[in-house]
Parts: sequence; C-alpha cells; structure tokens
Amino acid sequence: MSKLQGNILYGQSGGPTSVINSSAYGVIMEARKHKEIGQVIVMKHGIKGALNEEFFFIDKQDEETIELLKHTPGSAFGSVRFKLKDFREDDSNYLRLLYIFKKYNIRYFLYNGGNDSMDTCAKIADYMSHIDYDCRIIGIPKTIDNDLPCTDHTPGYGSAAKFISNTMMEICYDMLAYPNGKVTIVEIMGRHAGWLTGAAGIANLSGFGPDLIYFPEVPFSVEKFKEDVKRVYHEKKQCLVAVSEGITNEEGIFISSSSGMKDAFGHFQLGGVASKLATSVASDLGIPSRSVEFGSTQRAAAHLQSLTDVNEAIAVGRHAVEAAVKGESDLMVAIDRLNNDPYEIGFSLHSLVKCANTEKRVPRTMINEQGNGITQEFLDYVLPLIQGENPPKFKGGIQQFSKLKD
Amino acid sequence: MSKLQGNILYGQSGGPTSVINSSAYGVIMEARKHKEIGQVIVMKHGIKGALNEEFFFIDKQDEETIELLKHTPGSAFGSVRFKLKDFREDDSNYLRLLYIFKKYNIRYFLYNGGNDSMDTCAKIADYMSHIDYDCRIIGIPKTIDNDLPCTDHTPGYGSAAKFISNTMMEICYDMLAYPNGKVTIVEIMGRHAGWLTGAAGIANLSGFGPDLIYFPEVPFSVEKFKEDVKRVYHEKKQCLVAVSEGITNEEGIFISSSSGMKDAFGHFQLGGVASKLATSVASDLGIPSRSVEFGSTQRAAAHLQSLTDVNEAIAVGRHAVEAAVKGESDLMVAIDRLNNDPYEIGFSLHSLVKCANTEKRVPRTMINEQGNGITQEFLDYVLPLIQGENPPKFKGGIQQFSKLKD
Repeated sequence: MSKLQGNILYGQSGGPTSVINSSAYGVIMEARKHKEIGQVIVMKHGIKGALNEEFFFIDKQDEETIELLKHTPGSAFGSVRFKLKDFREDDSNYLRLLYIFKKYNIRYFLYNGGNDSMDTCAKIADYMSHIDYDCRIIGIPKTIDNDLPCTDHTPGYGSAAKFISNTMMEICYDMLAYPNGKVTIVEIMGRHAGWLTGAAGIANLSGFGPDLIYFPEVPFSVEKFKEDVKRVYHEKKQCLVAVSEGITNEEGIFISSSSGMKDAFGHFQLGGVASKLATSVASDLGIPSRSVEFGSTQRAAAHLQSLTDVNEAIAVGRHAVEAAVKGESDLMVAIDRLNNDPYEIGFSLHSLVKCANTEKRVPRTMINEQGNGITQEFLDYVLPLIQGENPPKFKGGIQQFSKLKD
Repeated sequence: MSKLQGNILYGQSGGPTSVINSSAYGVIMEARKHKEIGQVIVMKHGIKGALNEEFFFIDKQDEETIELLKHTPGSAFGSVRFKLKDFREDDSNYLRLLYIFKKYNIRYFLYNGGNDSMDTCAKIADYMSHIDYDCRIIGIPKTIDNDLPCTDHTPGYGSAAKFISNTMMEICYDMLAYPNGKVTIVEIMGRHAGWLTGAAGIANLSGFGPDLIYFPEVPFSVEKFKEDVKRVYHEKKQCLVAVSEGITNEEGIFISSSSGMKDAFGHFQLGGVASKLATSVASDLGIPSRSVEFGSTQRAAAHLQSLTDVNEAIAVGRHAVEAAVKGESDLMVAIDRLNNDPYEIGFSLHSLVKCANTEKRVPRTMINEQGNGITQEFLDYVLPLIQGENPPKFKGGIQQFSKLKD
C-alpha cells in the first residue's frame, strides 16, 4: 500500500464519556509518529464542524492543554447528534464535505462515537468511495452505554462503571446511618442496555451495595418490583435499588414518564423512572422512599476515571491512526479480550456498517434468574475494566481541564 | 482539677458527612493518650443507642477498621434524629441514661453533630449537672450545611464543597459538548443556609461553572429567575444554575414542592425545587431544561474529601477529648480562623446552648448584589477549606470502608 500524504480530520459525536478526550490524545500522539500525516485538525461539534468549517488546529494548542485531555470530561472539541441522510437521497452535505476534505487535504477521517456515529462514519466512507476520493475512514469506539457490537467493551464504560459502583457504595453506607431507613431508588443511564445499571452490583463486593437491580433486558413488572422491595425492606428496614432508565414492561413500553420528546435520532428522551417508582413505593406500600438520578455526572466524573479505561481509550485512538496509515478504511477499531485473568487485550477492525445501528445488550446469563441482580459472569466481565486510578490534576482544590484555543 | 477516671461515650447524630468518622478517629486516638480514660464506647445510632444499650466497643475493633474511618462516609456507628424533651417535662429517658452512664462508668460524653445534636448535648449536660453526676460533656461539630454558630466553619462542609465545585465543573464541561445546549438546574442541599450552594461558584475559577446561583438567604422571585435564565441562555445558548433546596419566596414560603412531611425536629422535608424550576423554564420560556439533584452523594462522597477537612475533623475530635480531660464541660469545640493567607486555625470552646438551635447563614456581603452569585469574600472564605486530597483506599477498583463489629 502506497503512503497517503495528508491531514487527519478527527471528531467526537454522541454523548460524552469521561475518557473520550483520551482517545483524541491517542490520535494526536500517534499522528506525530507518522511522516505522511501533516497535522491533526479537529471538527468543532463533530460532523457539523466540518460542514460549518469550524475547526481546532492541534498544532496551535499548547502541550499542557493536550496533556490535560487525559483528565478532561465531556467532549473537549464539542459533540453533536446529527444524522446524515444517505447520499443517494440527498448529497448536499456530502458535496460540502468533499469541498472541505479537498480544501484541507483531508486523507484520514477518524470519528469517535457510538452506534449512531459509526452510521455517520459508514455513510461518509460509502460516499468517498463512490466518488473515488482517496481517504481512509476509521471509527473509534466510545460510549458509556457499552452497547457497541463487535468490541468486547467500549472505552468510557469502565470509568462510568467505576463511578457508579463507588457512588452506590457511598449511598449505601450513608443510608445505613439511620435505624429505620428508606427505600432509595437510583436511576442509571442506559437506553436499551443494562451494562451501566449492572455495574451498580459491583458495590456489593464491598458489603455495601444495591439489594435489587433492574435491567432493560428483562421485562419489568411493577407488581414484582413492589414484592421485591417489600421483602427486602421487611428484612432489613432498608432497600437500595438500582434501576435502568430504559426498563420496559412486557409490551416493550418504557416505564419512565417519557416526556414524549424525541431526539434527532428518533429516540425517546428518558428519565424520571426512579421518581415514579419511589412515589409508587411510598403511596402503594406506605414505605418512605426517595429517588436519586445520577444524570450527566455518571458520564462526566473525570475525577473517578478507571486507569484501564483511560489507557484503552488512548490505545484505540492510536490504533485508529496506525490502521489508517497502514491503508485500512471503512472499519471500526474494536477491543478483543484475549484473557481475563490476567486481563489481556488486543485490537481488531470490523466493518462500520456491522458496528452501526445495532446495540449489544447484557446477555441473560449475566443477570440472575429472578431478573433483579447480576451473576458472577457479569462481575468477571466488568471487574478488569474498573482497575487502576488516574488521579485528577488538582490545583487549589479543583480539577484542571483542557482549555482549547479556537 | 482532679483527674476523672472513666470511659468515653461517643455518638454521632444528624445527617452524615463524609468526614464525621474522622472525628471519631480523632476521639479514639486522643483517648489512647490519657490514662484516666478506660475505653471508648460508641452508641449505635446516637443517643438511641444509649437508651437501647446498643454499643460498639472500640477495643474490640481491629486497627484497620479504625484507620479506614478516615475514608468512610456516612455515620459508621449509625446516626439518629431524636429530640429529647426537657427533663423537667419528662425525665424517663434521662433516668435511663443515668443508669447506663453508671453501669458503664461513663464520665465523658462526646456528641458529634449539628445544631439539633448540640441541643441534645446541652439537655443531657443540664440533667447530669442537676442530679450532680460527675460527667464532662463536650459537643463535636459536624454538618455539611456549615450553619453552626460560634465556629468559623464546620467539619464536613469543606469536603461537600469540594465535591460540589468539582462536580459542577464536570457538569458544565459536559454541557458544552453540544452547540445548542440546555438549561441545567442543579439542586443543592442546605435548608436555611446557602453555604453549599455558594460552593458551586468555586467552579467558575476553572472557567467552567454555574452562571446563576440562588441562595435561601435571598428571597427568590420566579419572575426574576426566568429573566436571568433568559438573558444567559440568549447570550450563551447554555445556562447552568445552582439552586438551594431551601429557597423561599418573599413571604418565606419554600419554592420546592414540599411533600408536606415533617421530620422528628419539625422540619419540612425538602427536594424537587430544581425539577419544578426546570419545568417552568421549559414550559414558560420554551427552552429545553433538565434538573439534577445531588441528593445524598454530596455528603457521602468519601472519594473526593478535602484533606484540610479530614484533618480538621480529626482535630476537633482530639480537642474534645483534651478539653474534657482538662475538666471542661457543657461546651462545643469550635474552629477559629486565625489567619486566611496563609490559612491558620485554632480551637476554642463555646456554650452548648449558644451553639444549639440557631443557624448561621451566609452574610449578604458574600452574595452578589443581584442575589444570583457569590462575591470574592465568599471565595476567600471557602477556598482554604477545600485544599488537599485524601485519596481513597482503593482495592480492586472500589473503595474500602470500615466494617465495624457489633
């Protein structure tokens, strides 16, 4: 494969994770090693930045800003939720992208995101190949939801799992303060996959964790839930529940009080299920109950990253550049678990189309028989992903984050 | 003053903080230094443990458990909300306490709590003095709310302030991911005092913090709030708001959707104000809005303690023992700020009655003129309290907490 001289266009898309900027760091560091790469240009707010010609030029950033990417949550370069139409239906955005690619001599397009972002990536790859523009397109996985197929797990998940398990421990210990406690229901992100919700169960290894865990993978019965809560509360005078925002009834209808609003991808906006269940516990069972919603803190908690996750996020960024330089295209980087104990990983590449638009759910064997807890198989899977710490760069008691120059 | 030979009875009361167990550690460590002290006995669930004769014996705990108290949130020995009647009204509980004090040779009674706990402490001191039982009674301050009078600040506040400011930074950075953002309204604890809510403003030192902060000390106008939000959103397409759970209107009526339920001290249970305001922003202003409630995580975040706070919590525990051994009684230990830069503190003792039942609120000079932000005076006050870190004792990715033997 001949060397392809040009610049990298990198972008972030979809919901942020606490380590997506570590993948950007990996891309930047690896790019510096390859002579055929001129510079790394980053789209502001993902693909919208390319369409609007709004960029960050990595050469113009100072080294401290780049180093701090490993400690910066959110999407430092801006993210977007934007669904590209198929170019055969409407090619206006693609013509604009082609103009930008040519203007900035973009020969490497690296897009960092989840299912929907891989869809965007696949469509651009399809178009560029169709019009025969020489460009290598690689997807870099990220999502706290851990629902991407093809990869053993997704960067971003380990840190969110670490935050959730440690915070559940703290909530549990805090609850134990009072002799006659409450039912506390914690709502955890994850639209269709219970990977994050299941991570709450790690807390039980410490002796302080949730009594009940409800997954979107198992149809949720309000009656069964109330029986479970009643039983635990009767025994312990306390009950800690972890519940996915995405639990549905037998018919697949969300239990949450959906606002009825859909996002750009047609997904219903969720939230409020814990509060709904807490109200039901209080009024139907007469047991004092309250709800906690982690909200964006679970994906933004840079101060409680998993070092394993940070290192893997950097590695997938590096691997994307390496693969593209080697001539690969139209593929997503995946993490393969080669061994679990000791934990060992490798990387592979998978078709973008295969990775887009399907969601990997928690297998039934990782959820207990009653559908209200995790099994050893889940623990064996998740524990290696939360190992190690990446202590924040505190200055005067507060963290330092990257401040990028436009 | 002659030496008083006997045991210490220690207890925790009121809402937990992430460092109250460090005060227990201070008591235990200091007690070991004094020959007149036999052993430290800890009431299970505060004063209720004494009434029920339920104790933890520190001599029976292993050293690792005691060391881990410095990293353990919640009330490791159990807490309680229990209001003692005046003994002149009903002395049944006091007779029971006297029996217990005599049975276990309690000559030192140390009670760790906030306003209400100092009230309990004062009443017991009043009774013991009345019946001439020789016992030294010292209050040890704690409360995340920082609303105790007599003391410059309260152990527990610094760590909660650190968690709130760092988490606000993360939420803010996360929000910036999208070009057309939302109004995010974060609800922060503090019934009548805005110390914690104001701490959200520290985040702005990083460049990523709340645009608006609303205190219980300033009457809240929903109309003024909507104007503020509209102005910020118009300018930035984002707006991050920190709001105290305890904001009231001009007439002093809580804005929050009170459940109408009161706790044992006759306080209304609060919560839900952020969600109420978010709904108002969405429906009245047509701006997408969401709410975040930190809930118990803000007082339980042992993983993000301020080292200054931990050390001061230990010190007030030590000082309480020292003072009691010296013959002091019926007093609360207070922290005096001797100097701000460099930060230097000392300790003093104050009448329990003076410390009980009154709340120290944020002075108007620490809140900006518009009543929607903090001043430099607030920053100068709070910054020394969040300095330094006390990294968690992680084992396999999760924290280790004390596991006490009954």
